[in-house]
Amino acid sequence: VDEFELIRRFFSTGYPQRTDVMLGVGDDGAISRLGRDEELVSCSDTLVAGTHFPPELPADAIAHRALATNLSDLAAMGASPRWFLLALALPRIEPEWLEQFSAGLARLAARYQVALIGGDTVRGPLSMTITALGSVPPGTAVRRSGAVDGDLIYVTGTCGDAARAWQAMAGGATLAADDPCYRRFAYPEPRVQEGLALRDLASAMIDISDGLHVDLERLLTASGVGGAARAEDVPLSAALVDQVGLAAARELALTGGDDYELCFSVAESRTTDLARLSADWSCPPVCIGRVVSEPGLSWELDGLGLANPSSAFQHF
Amino acid sequence: VDEFELIRRFFSTGYPQRTDVMLGVGDDGAISRLGRDEELVSCSDTLVAGTHFPPELPADAIAHRALATNLSDLAAMGASPRWFLLALALPRIEPEWLEQFSAGLARLAARYQVALIGGDTVRGPLSMTITALGSVPPGTAVRRSGAVDGDLIYVTGTCGDAARAWQAMAGGATLAADDPCYRRFAYPEPRVQEGLALRDLASAMIDISDGLHVDLERLLTASGVGGAARAEDVPLSAALVDQVGLAAARELALTGGDDYELCFSVAESRTTDLARLSADWSCPPVCIGRVVSEPGLSWELDGLGLANPSSAFQHF
Repeated sequence: VDEFELIRRFFSTGYPQRTDVMLGVGDDGAISRLGRDEELVSCSDTLVAGTHFPPELPADAIAHRALATNLSDLAAMGASPRWFLLALALPRIEPEWLEQFSAGLARLAARYQVALIGGDTVRGPLSMTITALGSVPPGTAVRRSGAVDGDLIYVTGTCGDAARAWQAMAGGATLAADDPCYRRFAYPEPRVQEGLALRDLASAMIDISDGLHVDLERLLTASGVGGAARAEDVPLSAALVDQVGLAAARELALTGGDDYELCFSVAESRTTDLARLSADWSCPPVCIGRVVSEPGLSWELDGLGLANPSSAFQHF
Repeated sequence: VDEFELIRRFFSTGYPQRTDVMLGVGDDGAISRLGRDEELVSCSDTLVAGTHFPPELPADAIAHRALATNLSDLAAMGASPRWFLLALALPRIEPEWLEQFSAGLARLAARYQVALIGGDTVRGPLSMTITALGSVPPGTAVRRSGAVDGDLIYVTGTCGDAARAWQAMAGGATLAADDPCYRRFAYPEPRVQEGLALRDLASAMIDISDGLHVDLERLLTASGVGGAARAEDVPLSAALVDQVGLAAARELALTGGDDYELCFSVAESRTTDLARLSADWSCPPVCIGRVVSEPGLSWELDGLGLANPSSAFQHF
C-alpha cells in the first residue's frame, strides 16, 4: 500500500463534500473559498498515542477524538467549522485499523459538514495532527480576553467524566464500552452548535481540554481579571459520582482534562438571553461563579475557601 | 516549563507580524482575514525524526525543513504564503534545542513574511506538522491536472543533491556543514517567488518531494496524459557529480526525494515568456521533456530507453 492508495481507500470517499472546496485531497494544497465577508479561524491539535490516549483505544474513537478536539477549539471561538487537514503518522499499515479510523473520522465530519481537504501520511510512532479551519463574520469571533468584572461564569455539560476514564485506563482498567465516563473520553462531543449560539452572547470563551481550573484561569488571565467560583456548582454526572464518590468527582471536575465542554463569561444583564438560548441544549450551561477585578481564580466549597487545584493534565 | 511558557519563549516573538492576522498564537484558534477576492490554499506536511531527517540534524535545520516543505507545496500551487500553524511533539524540553529550532523557523518565516498564528506543543517522539495557509486570486491556483499533449516539461534548479546527503547520513557519514549536498538537505530553499511567477504560465505544477520520476508521474497521471523525458537533460550540480560520479548522480536525480524543486509543464507557445520571466532566477528552469497523449512516463538517455526508475523515497 503506497501513500496514494492509502489516501484513496481511506481518506477520499465517505467524507462530506462542500461547494466551497475548489480542490480537495490529492494536490500539493487544497483550494477553498471564503465568502466575501468572513474571517478565517484556524487551529491545530496533536494527539500522541500514550500521551493523549491509550494506543489500544478503538481506532474510530482515536479519529473521533482527534477531530473533536479541533472542532471544540473552533466552537470556543464561535466559528463555523468548514474544512480540515489530517496529518497521520502510523508505525505500519493495518487496513482494518485504517478502515475503522476513517469510519470514525467520516462520521464526526458528517455531523458537522466539515470537509477533509488535505494532509499527509507518514511512517512514525502513532500520532496525528488535525488542522481545522472555520469562519466567522468579521470581528465576531469570541476570544479568551473579553471577560469583564461582574460577568457571570458558566460551564456547559458535566466535568470530570473523561478524566475519570483516562485515569482508570492509565491504571490498567478495562472499561465497558457503554460506561458513560468511557464514552465521554472516547467520543467527546464538541459543542459546535452551542459555541455558534454563544457567539453574540459570551464575552469570553475557552474549551476545557486541560481542566476547568486551568482553562478558566487562562481565560481570566487573558482578560486581565480574576474569578470567584463555587466548586459545589460545578456540574457532575451521576455516573462520575457513582464511580468515585462526591469528593473525588469534584476534584476530577476541577483538574481533569479532556472534557471539551465550553467555559464562558456573560454579562449579568444578558442572563435571560442565555436562559432562552440554551433552553433546549443537551449540555445546559450552569453558572459556577463570577468575574472579579482582582487577578487570580479562587474556589470555595460550601462557603469555605479551597486550596487552588493544580491540573494533572499538563501537556508537559 | 509549561506549554504557555514554552510558547511565550520560543514561538511568540521574532516571527513576522502581518496586518491580516486579527488574532495569533494563544487563543483556541487564530483569526485571519482573507481579502475579498481570494481563495485559500492550505497544506500540511509532517516530518518525523528518523523517517524524514536524522534526529541529530541541527534544530534550526529541522525547523527550516519543516516550514520549507510546506512553503514548497504552496509554491507548487502558485500561492502567496501568508500564515502557518506548528504542531510540535517533543520527548523533553531542551531550551537550547528549542532556541535553535525557533531561530531557524523564524528566519525562514521572515524571508517569506509568513506569520506563525497557532499550533500545539505536546510530549511525544520528536516530530512536527506544519500547516501552511496561502492565497490566490480565484481560479488561478496551479493544479497538477492541467498538463496537455505537447506541453514542454521543466524542472527548476538541480536534482538529487538532498538525496545524496540523506543517503550518506543514513549510512553513518558525517557531512561537513558547508557540503553543498548537505546544505540542500538541511536548508532547502522553497521556490516561492518562482511558483508565484509561474502562476499564469505553468499548465500544471508539482514540487519534488519524493523524487523527480515519481512526482512528475503524479502530475502526468493527474492530467490524464503521459510524458517522454530525457535523463541527460535533468540538471545535476557539480558537487553531486563530483561526490558520486555521473551515473549515480543521474539515478539520484531521478529517484531521490527532498529536492523541493518545482516541476511544471508549459505550452510550447509560451516558452519565450518563460525564458524572459526566469532570466534572473538562481534556479533556472531546464526543459527535460515533453507531454505526450499516451499515459505513462518514459525516460531515455542519449537516445536509448531507460528502465523506469523506482523511488527510494516512498512515505511507506
